[in-house]
Formats: sequence, C-alpha cells, structure tokens
Amino acid sequence: MPVASLKERIAKKGYVLNGYCQMPGAFSAEFYSRCGWDCVTLDLQHGLIGEDMAIQMLQALTASGVMPLCRVGWLDAAIIMKVLDSGSLGVTCPMINTGAQAEQLVRYAKYPPRGERSMGPLRPSMIYGQDYLKTANDFINVFPMVETAEAVKNIEDIVAVDGINGIYIGSGDLAQSMGRPIGREAIDPEVDMAIEHVLQVCLKRDIIVGMMARNAEQAQQFIKRGFKFVGISSDYVAMTTQAKNWVGAVNKAMGHE
Amino acid sequence: MPVASLKERIAKKGYVLNGYCQMPGAFSAEFYSRCGWDCVTLDLQHGLIGEDMAIQMLQALTASGVMPLCRVGWLDAAIIMKVLDSGSLGVTCPMINTGAQAEQLVRYAKYPPRGERSMGPLRPSMIYGQDYLKTANDFINVFPMVETAEAVKNIEDIVAVDGINGIYIGSGDLAQSMGRPIGREAIDPEVDMAIEHVLQVCLKRDIIVGMMARNAEQAQQFIKRGFKFVGISSDYVAMTTQAKNWVGAVNKAMGHE
Amino acid sequence: MPVASLKERIAKKGYVLNGYCQMPGAFSAEFYSRCGWDCVTLDLQHGLIGEDMAIQMLQALTASGVMPLCRVGWLDAAIIMKVLDSGSLGVTCPMINTGAQAEQLVRYAKYPPRGERSMGPLRPSMIYGQDYLKTANDFINVFPMVETAEAVKNIEDIVAVDGINGIYIGSGDLAQSMGRPIGREAIDPEVDMAIEHVLQVCLKRDIIVGMMARNAEQAQQFIKRGFKFVGISSDYVAMTTQAKNWVGAVNKAMGHE
Amino acid sequence: MPVASLKERIAKKGYVLNGYCQMPGAFSAEFYSRCGWDCVTLDLQHGLIGEDMAIQMLQALTASGVMPLCRVGWLDAAIIMKVLDSGSLGVTCPMINTGAQAEQLVRYAKYPPRGERSMGPLRPSMIYGQDYLKTANDFINVFPMVETAEAVKNIEDIVAVDGINGIYIGSGDLAQSMGRPIGREAIDPEVDMAIEHVLQVCLKRDIIVGMMARNAEQAQQFIKRGFKFVGISSDYVAMTTQAKNWVGAVNKAMGHE
Amino acid sequence: MPVASLKERIAKKGYVLNGYCQMPGAFSAEFYSRCGWDCVTLDLQHGLIGEDMAIQMLQALTASGVMPLCRVGWLDAAIIMKVLDSGSLGVTCPMINTGAQAEQLVRYAKYPPRGERSMGPLRPSMIYGQDYLKTANDFINVFPMVETAEAVKNIEDIVAVDGINGIYIGSGDLAQSMGRPIGREAIDPEVDMAIEHVLQVCLKRDIIVGMMARNAEQAQQFIKRGFKFVGISSDYVAMTTQAKNWVGAVNKAMGHE
Amino acid sequence: MPVASLKERIAKKGYVLNGYCQMPGAFSAEFYSRCGWDCVTLDLQHGLIGEDMAIQMLQALTASGVMPLCRVGWLDAAIIMKVLDSGSLGVTCPMINTGAQAEQLVRYAKYPPRGERSMGPLRPSMIYGQDYLKTANDFINVFPMVETAEAVKNIEDIVAVDGINGIYIGSGDLAQSMGRPIGREAIDPEVDMAIEHVLQVCLKRDIIVGMMARNAEQAQQFIKRGFKFVGISSDYVAMTTQAKNWVGAVNKAMGHE
Repeated sequence: MPVASLKERIAKKGYVLNGYCQMPGAFSAEFYSRCGWDCVTLDLQHGLIGEDMAIQMLQALTASGVMPLCRVGWLDAAIIMKVLDSGSLGVTCPMINTGAQAEQLVRYAKYPPRGERSMGPLRPSMIYGQDYLKTANDFINVFPMVETAEAVKNIEDIVAVDGINGIYIGSGDLAQSMGRPIGREAIDPEVDMAIEHVLQVCLKRDIIVGMMARNAEQAQQFIKRGFKFVGISSDYVAMTTQAKNWVGAVNKAMGHE
Repeated sequence: MPVASLKERIAKKGYVLNGYCQMPGAFSAEFYSRCGWDCVTLDLQHGLIGEDMAIQMLQALTASGVMPLCRVGWLDAAIIMKVLDSGSLGVTCPMINTGAQAEQLVRYAKYPPRGERSMGPLRPSMIYGQDYLKTANDFINVFPMVETAEAVKNIEDIVAVDGINGIYIGSGDLAQSMGRPIGREAIDPEVDMAIEHVLQVCLKRDIIVGMMARNAEQAQQFIKRGFKFVGISSDYVAMTTQAKNWVGAVNKAMGHE
Repeated sequence: MPVASLKERIAKKGYVLNGYCQMPGAFSAEFYSRCGWDCVTLDLQHGLIGEDMAIQMLQALTASGVMPLCRVGWLDAAIIMKVLDSGSLGVTCPMINTGAQAEQLVRYAKYPPRGERSMGPLRPSMIYGQDYLKTANDFINVFPMVETAEAVKNIEDIVAVDGINGIYIGSGDLAQSMGRPIGREAIDPEVDMAIEHVLQVCLKRDIIVGMMARNAEQAQQFIKRGFKFVGISSDYVAMTTQAKNWVGAVNKAMGHE
Repeated sequence: MPVASLKERIAKKGYVLNGYCQMPGAFSAEFYSRCGWDCVTLDLQHGLIGEDMAIQMLQALTASGVMPLCRVGWLDAAIIMKVLDSGSLGVTCPMINTGAQAEQLVRYAKYPPRGERSMGPLRPSMIYGQDYLKTANDFINVFPMVETAEAVKNIEDIVAVDGINGIYIGSGDLAQSMGRPIGREAIDPEVDMAIEHVLQVCLKRDIIVGMMARNAEQAQQFIKRGFKFVGISSDYVAMTTQAKNWVGAVNKAMGHE
Repeated sequence: MPVASLKERIAKKGYVLNGYCQMPGAFSAEFYSRCGWDCVTLDLQHGLIGEDMAIQMLQALTASGVMPLCRVGWLDAAIIMKVLDSGSLGVTCPMINTGAQAEQLVRYAKYPPRGERSMGPLRPSMIYGQDYLKTANDFINVFPMVETAEAVKNIEDIVAVDGINGIYIGSGDLAQSMGRPIGREAIDPEVDMAIEHVLQVCLKRDIIVGMMARNAEQAQQFIKRGFKFVGISSDYVAMTTQAKNWVGAVNKAMGHE
Repeated sequence: MPVASLKERIAKKGYVLNGYCQMPGAFSAEFYSRCGWDCVTLDLQHGLIGEDMAIQMLQALTASGVMPLCRVGWLDAAIIMKVLDSGSLGVTCPMINTGAQAEQLVRYAKYPPRGERSMGPLRPSMIYGQDYLKTANDFINVFPMVETAEAVKNIEDIVAVDGINGIYIGSGDLAQSMGRPIGREAIDPEVDMAIEHVLQVCLKRDIIVGMMARNAEQAQQFIKRGFKFVGISSDYVAMTTQAKNWVGAVNKAMGHE
C-alpha cells in the first residue's frame, strides 16, 4: 500500500471526498470505503466506535485500500497514539481552541524531535514499510477541529503551529458556541462569516480546510468555495436515507403513507 | 412487545415490506430496522452473519421494535432452533425442494405435538411473555425457499405441509437451476412463468408469497401481482447505492469521472 | 421510547431502584434489566466494561425498555460524551471533590449554552426523537460521586452547580478517605455522619441522593432515610449469591460442606 | 490442570453438581463457575451461545479451574469435535433416540480406533498435557440426551453402546414427546415412570444419570433417587431470581407492588 | 485484488507454501499472512475458529493481499457456502472417503450448472469483481481431505470427480485410521506407502497434492517428492516455538533449566 | 492462584523473563503465556489492544496461570484502575518524567491511605481472595517508564516516590528524546550511559529495573548487567520470525529467493 499524502491527492484532483464511518463494524466499513471515497474517517467521537472497534475497522480500511483517517473524541495522548499505531494516517481532533492545544496535538501525533509520539508502530511498519518510523512525520495528517468562537478568534495561532496541515470546521458546534441556530438547511450568516474567515486564513497558508456537507450539492459548493477536504454525511445516513426512500416510495404508491 | 403474526400485519396493510440485513453488526441492524420496514430478516445464508452475530443482531431488532426474522443457511436443526430460541419470529430456509424437506423444516420449527423443536425458549419467554411455549406454534413463520426447478415441480406437495405459512422465491437461484439467465434487469420469461405458477398455487391456499425486489418500482409490481412479503434489496446495497450516488455526483460535477 | 426524567419517576413512586451491571455482555444486561429495576446503570468504573462493550450494552437496555445510565471511570470528556451519544440518559462520575470539578462534569454532559457537549447524537436522535438536541439538557442526569472527605467538605459548592440533579455517595471510598473502616455489615458512625450531612444538604435543595445498598433490607432503610436513588448490589452478586445458595444447600444437606 | 474423570469425582462425593451457562459471555461464565459447581456445562443448544462464544467461554472455565462440559445443539460432527478441540471434557447431545445415533455420537467424540474424531487437539494438548491424544478417549464424557418416548423405548440399546458413560434426561421434552404436561411444579407421573425406567436401566450398568433440578430441594431429591449428575437451573435464572427478590422485597415493603 | 488460480501460482513456482491460521483473531491472521506464504488457510476444523471469527479473519487476509482459503469442519453445505461467500477462494474438507462425498463437496462449492451453490456473493463481487458469479467456478479450489484407509482405497473415484483440483492428505488421521503410529518424527512406512499411492494417482491426473510439513526440512522433502501445496505447521506453533526458544536459551544460560 | 510479588520471584531466580502480548486476542495470549515466561505484560500502549480486549486477555492469563501485568497508554486514572480491577497485578506507565508524575501514578494504583485507587475489585477478590482489598497495596507493581532525557535527569526524584518498585526503560524513545540513533543492533553509547546511570541509581535502592531485549543473547547481557525484569521482543515478532524462517528456508532451498 503506497502512502500518498493528502496533499498529493489534492494536488491531483483539487479536493478529496471523505467518507465518514459512524457505525461500528469492520464490514460496514469495508463496504462503505469501497464507494469511491478518496479517504475514509472513522469517527470515534460521535460514531458508536470505541478503541477496540476502531482497531478492527482500520484493518477493514486496509482491506479496501482506501486512505484511513480517524477522528478521536478528545485531545488525549493515548487514543491519538493508538489510532496512529493501528494504521490511521491522520487524526482529526475536536475542540482545539488555542495555539497551545494545537501544539499539544501535533506533539502527540509526531515523533521526536518535532513531537513526543512514542515509538512502536508495529502494524504501520508492516503495512506501510519499514521506513515508516523515519517518514511518518511527513505524511501523518493533523487536523484540529475549529468549532468554537474562541478557536475562530485564535485561528492564526492555530495554523501557525508547525505540523498542522489541515483544519476541520465543525459548523454545528461552532453555531452553538456562537449562540446561533445550527441551520440544517443553510448555514447561519454570522456562522458562515466566521467559517469564511477561517477558510481565508488557511488558504493563504496553503492549509487544507475540511467541512462536512449534507449532500452532493452542498459538497460541490464547498469545493468551489475552496474547501479541499469535503465529507458527505456518513455511512448510517447513506443507509437509512436509501432505505427510507424505498419504503416510503412503495408505501406511498400503495396508499399507505 | 406484542407478537402479531405476519398474517395479521398483512391483513391490515395488504403486504409487508421486509428489510434484509446482510452486514454483520448490531448497530447497522438497529439503524436499518428503524427505516419503516414491517419486518426485518437477518440473512445468515448470504449475509456475513454467523450464529453468534445473529444472536446479537436479534437483540438489536428487539431494541428497534421491528418483527425479527431469519434466513438460515441450510435445513439444519441446530441453527433453526437457535435463531428461534434467540428471538426470531420465523425462519426462511433455502433449497426446500420436496414435501419431505418442507415437513422436516416445520418439524424443526414447531414444538410437539406438531414438530420436534426442543423446549428452552429462555429469551423468547422473557421478551414475548411466559405463554410463549404454548402459543409459539401459532405465530412462528415458516418459509421454505422455492428456488429450483424441482421445487417448482413439487410446489403442491410443499404448500400442502401443515405449518408452512409462506413461500419465499429465490428468483436468481431458480433461473440458474432452470438454465436460464439471471436477468438483473428483468426476470427471464420462462423463469417468470414458473414463478407465476408458484404464486397462483399459493394464492389459492392463502399462503403468503415473498420475493426480493431490486428497487421500489419492482416492489410495487410484485405487490400488485399478489406478493405479500416483499423485500427490497438489502442494508449494504442501500448504503453503497447512496454513497456512490453522492461521490459520483460530486466527481462528475467537478469533472472527475 | 418515552423519555421521562428521573425526577418524574421519583415523583410518582418516591424513589427509584437502580440495577448495576458490572459484568460485560449485552445479554446479561438485557436479562438483568428486565428484573423490575426503575433504571439500570452500566458500571464502566469497577465493572469489567470498556467503551465498546458499554455501547453494546446500551443497546441491550433499549431492548429491555429500562432507563439507561452509566457510571464512567473518571472525569473525562471523551467517555462522558460517548456514553451519552450511545444512548445513556445520564452519567455518574467518580471522585468529584470540588465545585470546579462538578462544573466541568456538567459542561461535558450538557450542550451549549450551558455546557460544551459536542453535537452529534446519532443514536439518541433515532431512539429518543429528533428533538433530542433541543431537549437533552433537560433530562440528562448528572450525578457527581461524593466519596472523599474533601467532597463532603465541599458539598455545598458541588450541589450549587447548575445542572447537577443528583449526588451519588460512594460509602466505601468515603470511609477509606476518612481513615475509617469500610464496614461491610454497618456503616461506621463517623462515615455515617458525613453521609447524613450530604443527604441533608441535598434534601434542602431537592437534589436526588443515591447510594448502593447491600441487600433489600438496607435498601428500605436508605429509602426511609431520604435516599431517592437506591442501588442494590449488582448483577454478578445476584448471580453468584443465588448459585452459591443452591450449591451450598445441596452439599450441606448431603453432608458435603 | 489435572483431568479427573466425572466417575472419579462422583466416586468421591456420590454425585456432582453441574452449573449451566446459558448467557453468552466469558466473564459471567467465570463468575458462575466459581460458585462451587463440580462441573459446568455451556449450553450451546438453548443458551444464547454460538460456536465462537463457546470457545471464549471454555477459556473462562479454564481460568476458574472447573471441569468444562458442553451441550451441543444437534448430533453434528463439526460442533462436537470443535468443543472438544476447544477444551471441553465432554459433550451432551440432544435427541439421541436410537442405539445407532448413540453410536454415531461416540464415534464423533472418540479417537480411532473406537471412533472417528479427527486429530488436532491444539488447546487440549496445551492445557491437559501432551499425552492428551492417547488418554482423551478415557476421560471424555459422552452423554446422550434421552428426551423422547422413542429414546425411552430404546434405552437398552443406547446404554449398550461402548463409550457412553452417562445419560442426560430432558424431562420437559420427554413430557411433550409423550403428550403429557411439562409440570413446572412436579413431574407428571407417567413421565416420571419413564424417567425411573431409564434411571434403573442405567444404574444396573453403572451409567451416570443426569437431570436438571429446578432448585436445591429438587436437586437433593434427585440425588437421593440415584441421579449422580444434577444441574440446578442456570446462570440467568440465578441472576434474575435474586434480582427480582431484591426488587420485589423493597417495592412490597414500600407499598409499590 | 487479482484472482489467480492456485494452478497458475504453482505453474510459476513449482509449488505453493500454505500458512495455517489456527488461532482466532484478525490481527494474528494479518501478521501471519504477511510472512511470505503463497496462500493462507484458516483452519475452522482444528483451529479455535468459528464461523463469525472466520468471516473477520477473511477480511484480514484481504488486507494482507494473500490468497485466502479455508478448511471447514465437515461436509456441510451452510459453512462451505458461507466461507466462499465471505471471500475464501477455496475449501478444504475433511473426511472425504468416497466419490459420492467428493461429488457432494463439489456441488456445494460450485454454482449451477455444475453444482448447487446458492447465488449471493456480496463480498466476493465487491473484492474480486462483478464477474465473480460467472468466473468463480473456474478458480474456486476444492480440496477433499484423504485421511482414512477407505479414502485411499477410493482415491481413483475421488479424483475422478469433475471440479476436484487438489487432494489434501491428513497423514495423522490416516495413520490412526490404518491402526499405525502417528509418527511425529517420521511417517510410518505403511502410511507412507498409502500416501505415495495417492500422490501418484494424483500426479497422473495433474491434481495438486497437499500435506502439512512439520518444519522447513520436511517441507522441502515433500516438494521434491511431488507435493505442490505444502503447509508448514501453523501460527500458534510458530509463535510458541520461537518464544520457548528465547525463554529456554536465557534460562539455560543463566543456570535455570 | 497464589499471588507472589515480583520481588519474591526475583529473589528465587535472580530475574524474571517477561513476555509481551501486542496482538489482540485471548487465545494468542493464552498460548503465548504458556511458553515459560515468569510474567506476561499486555501492551495497551503500542499493542493493538484496547480496554475491552485487555479485559478479555487478562482472563486468558488467569487461565494459563502466569502473572499478569499491563502497560497502559498514558498516565490516566481510568485505564490504570480498570486494568487493576480486571486482574492485572501491576501497571507499567509510559512517559513518567518527574517525581510528581511518579507520585500521581502511585496514587492511581494504590488504595488509601497511600493512594486514591477507588474500591471495587470484583474480579481480583474472586481470583486472588477476599483479602485482596487489604493486601493489594503490597503486591501491585508500579513501574514508571523512563524514556526521556528529562526522566533520566529526574531519576532520583522518581525512584524516591514511595510505592515505585520498578523502573522500565524505553531505550528507543530515550534515544529519540536524546537526539541519538535508535540503534537496532546496539544501543548508542550516550544512550547507554544514561541507561547505566538509571540502573545504578535503582540498584542502590533495590528497585527492579526492566528493559526489552531484542533476542536471547541480549536478554542474557541485560540480566548479567543487573536488569531483573527482562522482556524479549513480543508475541507477533515471535510468530513472524519463525514463520519467515520457515518460508525463507524452503524458498531458498528450492531456488526461489
């Protein structure tokens, strides 16, 4: 399995589409990750996925050949190092509000001398090659989540941290933090201004910006606007959306709404 | 959880829509079974679901409140009794080609004096009530699969077996058995004639006939034609269809097909 | 599944009986939670239950229809948010010794503006309804454990924190913290005085107080004394107590003690 | 772990008490098997225990040091050999109605020249010693279940099969098979006569007879009557009986029945 | 993942080395399958591997890119079809003693018109391509085990069955069946003559013959003798051999034997 | 299971050999722990082992009778208390760089009055005896890892903490922290000087010092040098080393390198 950085992939295509796995299970992960996504993120934060399940699911992503990433639940050394040691090629971390937190995140995810990640990549060395230890710092993706007003305020400090190669915006949490409506249909204008600010700061520094779209139309808008890492909803939404469409269409046609 | 027989459900609505779970996992099962299905079948035959996983998934179906059914892999006493003892309210069994096989199937699924199911319904007694032992024979569904030319020939014998309350047609296997094309878009005319024959024999005896539709349109056709138990594809197809649509739409719009 | 707050349940009955699950396993949880408990707490602290197992067991509690709660192992954002996102309707947190810790606990468990819980309740929205996001802050139970001398000293600060609706007293740890005997048969008088102090402070503020009883007799005493949330030992103790009684009675009767 | 045959254990004590595990889970099995049982049987027939779970639970029984046995779901070579290869020291098999079936059961459970068990006891060789292959035929217990009128009729043939060292009577299934009431409180007299017949035939041949008692009193009666292998209900009954007693006693005392 | 038949692999190299997985676990399987084996067989017969575990482990073999095979526990339709539907590219089946049994084995493993394998290869279609249904009969490997005197006698009938492309010799079981010593160090001469007979019959028909070697030396002998499919012990033996060597060497050197 | 302290074991033999489990799985753990190791450490840090898996594996170590230890991923109260409550007899904790951190580690691992470990050892009380609560502080092993330049500098402070009975040196991380090569073949001289310093400080205080050897030769050197707790690589390395040797030897002999 050749390890290409997200940056290289984006260089080729202009953006990457990221699939979110929120259901536990190595087979739903395998099936979902074979749907054309450029990378797949296991969501250990809001997904029903704990540490042991994440390990299994990372193997499934290896089986499907997709680039594996993880979102962890908190800025916690043990789980960040564990998903990397299990084969994740990056980590998205929620609630990074300051440069100091971003610095801590990088330190957990990078080997010395840049960081303090502990040595012992048994599975990565096997699947990515024996030089993993030397090269991992170059391609491990570190994405702080910007999802509070405080983080927006501190965005320059956050992106200035060496080793941060992307920012993931949590638009719902950001809206709540700003005391604005979550906006299922459209992003609240004030929230959107904050997002735009983050986006522009990042674009200047050639930092990837990611955000989750609700559907394909929104995903296109995001890409056109400059987002390079775009998720589209998640595995369980894909499954239930289609199933409800089937059931609803038949029941409606048969007069059972 | 009140136990209504499939027949009662069909009496109310004219048909039931059956969701198929083929991915292992108690949470994909829970999410899928909350999409409006009248009943959900765990597919132990072609799904990636073994005995221990099926047990877990049956609990998930209890959690979502949907009627739980199972398709087993073969006419085997141990697994038939195990899925029933784990809470399944019926069993679909592949490759029932003769009346004798149908009789054996009923005997495994029903308590004496009708059958030889062994006593010990610890979970069913808990979730369906203490009189389960006395009433189970009335509502446990027994669906032989008719999926060979031989079974079509013997359909009268099969449906004559006391305790069979439905027939599930495996149209793909039937086509192969008849040496006809599988027909992903439309059912081969010769196969369709055989199916129609089975359908008419069953309708005369008030036996439920089931078949899997590829999509909502086909499901409606089946219902109009007299099928009362209609599946629409399965969980993994739902998930991957929607995901591929998302990915495909974005990539196409952005010029990356 | 209608979501009633603990307070409403207590208003009806005067108290609630809480069952503790300490053995891992979705089926022991399902069986145990169908024994008449008003609510069931999964013990992630001293039980043999990790994060992935807790997620499975929360589904089991949905299957049995009992109110699901969790005790986590420490004041940790990731696990608190994860059990809530997996369907727990409350969180008991050990070793809350100060008002500041109680405030932190509330912030992890409540959405903005009160707290900082991150948005993404995929399973709760499914099982409790789409308005979960708006209403969760009203019914999510937050129970700090008071189990050190320091916590007793700070009890006024702790219960003054907005969002704390109950206190769970760990009488064994409290005894150890006070340098007093644990008292398997009876609570040490000094420890009991501390407990009484906490109880009275809470009763004045209409805060629920919980404690674990060793058996039914002690549970009644606790209820009469003013405890509203009373546990009685746990699943493994229930199982082994009865089994040892069976084995012991037979062996004694047969002369094999 | 020294391997003593059931016969030796019975020789010492006059009987053995057998604990039944019907809940899946390696920890409930470990806790349950430490309650004083002389042996523990994993119930793969009516328990919620499949093949993979049984393997895990057999390890748990090793951890607790109790003699491990299994009841399988049917006279099936694969599962019989698998539980033995996983460390079970015996197999109880349901629905053995003829001498020929008993012979087949022995053949699956014993190595050549007596039987046709396939060689490959990797775990037994590790935990019971390298000479397992030579000695296993001497101590592997083979217990056909006698639970139909036909089996009672054929009891002489069944016990005449070389290698059968015990008979396990399924009194409930036997009652159903004879068209008699199951008799939760007392065994139906006709069924009891059939049981007595089986017992006497076995006692003459020094064959162990086993049956499950509902409680300690019935267990004593069985032992006095000549049963040497006596089960007392099961793990989930133990757990739920005690829990319901706790809950019921408190609610009754508090006026909430 | 390109699907090459075993025959093509053997054509290139003269033989294949087969790794046996007998420990349950998707990660031991992944690590073991990356050790240079040409193919890996999951041993559902003597390994501690049930159906659900086998499914997980087949995904692990996909992750490592090795050719996945399975040995099942018995000539049973459900498990044979299940391992194939889960991605195994072949099936080894124990105790095939007659041509009729070999014919049955082929029928379970091949689609119509040759056999009666049921259609529904959801995972194989995903990982091997959409034409799997049409081409699977060409590359699915079917290896009966010859491990009794009866099978040796019937070897011509067995290999005459269309669809059998290999024979796997169980030398230990064969020895027991012939009443000869198992021969841990060297194969008993009478048993070896029987093996040679099977080998020569197969070589004439260009049928692959497989056998398990105890170590590298024996593996070379087997290859030179004409065996094309050679296993070398198994995962747990590899692990424990090395570990015992380490421990033994140190303790010996330090005077603690 | 008698609980002997590491100190007693070392007193008898001069050293202990520690096996490392890094693969998840209760059966690989059982097999590995029966290879002669004096104790076995489950590696929750770099191993593919999460909390739920560790719990299962601790049961496996009970089954094999070896002394069970755990290395956790970080100085985190919840996981340290959980592995102890699950039966681990000690905890190794990475990245302890100061006396204050060592003090915190001891406080998490010891009951009051020495520490703040919460009471509730349900499994330890069962397997180690009812007086566990009183005696655990005496035999629970607490091993900080010294693996940074800072830790070396602070070694006197670290070992002065009451309750620390051993130091585990992470030579690879230490080398990285010191900006020195990791030295797969031989330890870098500067790093070795730091190690020697730690060793001498500990030997003076009768503190056990541990380190992982690459092979048996290095293990002997370490023991002769004064290390009392010596690991030799790990389970997956044992397995893959032997397997690669087998495959390599055959392929080389047959001309396929």
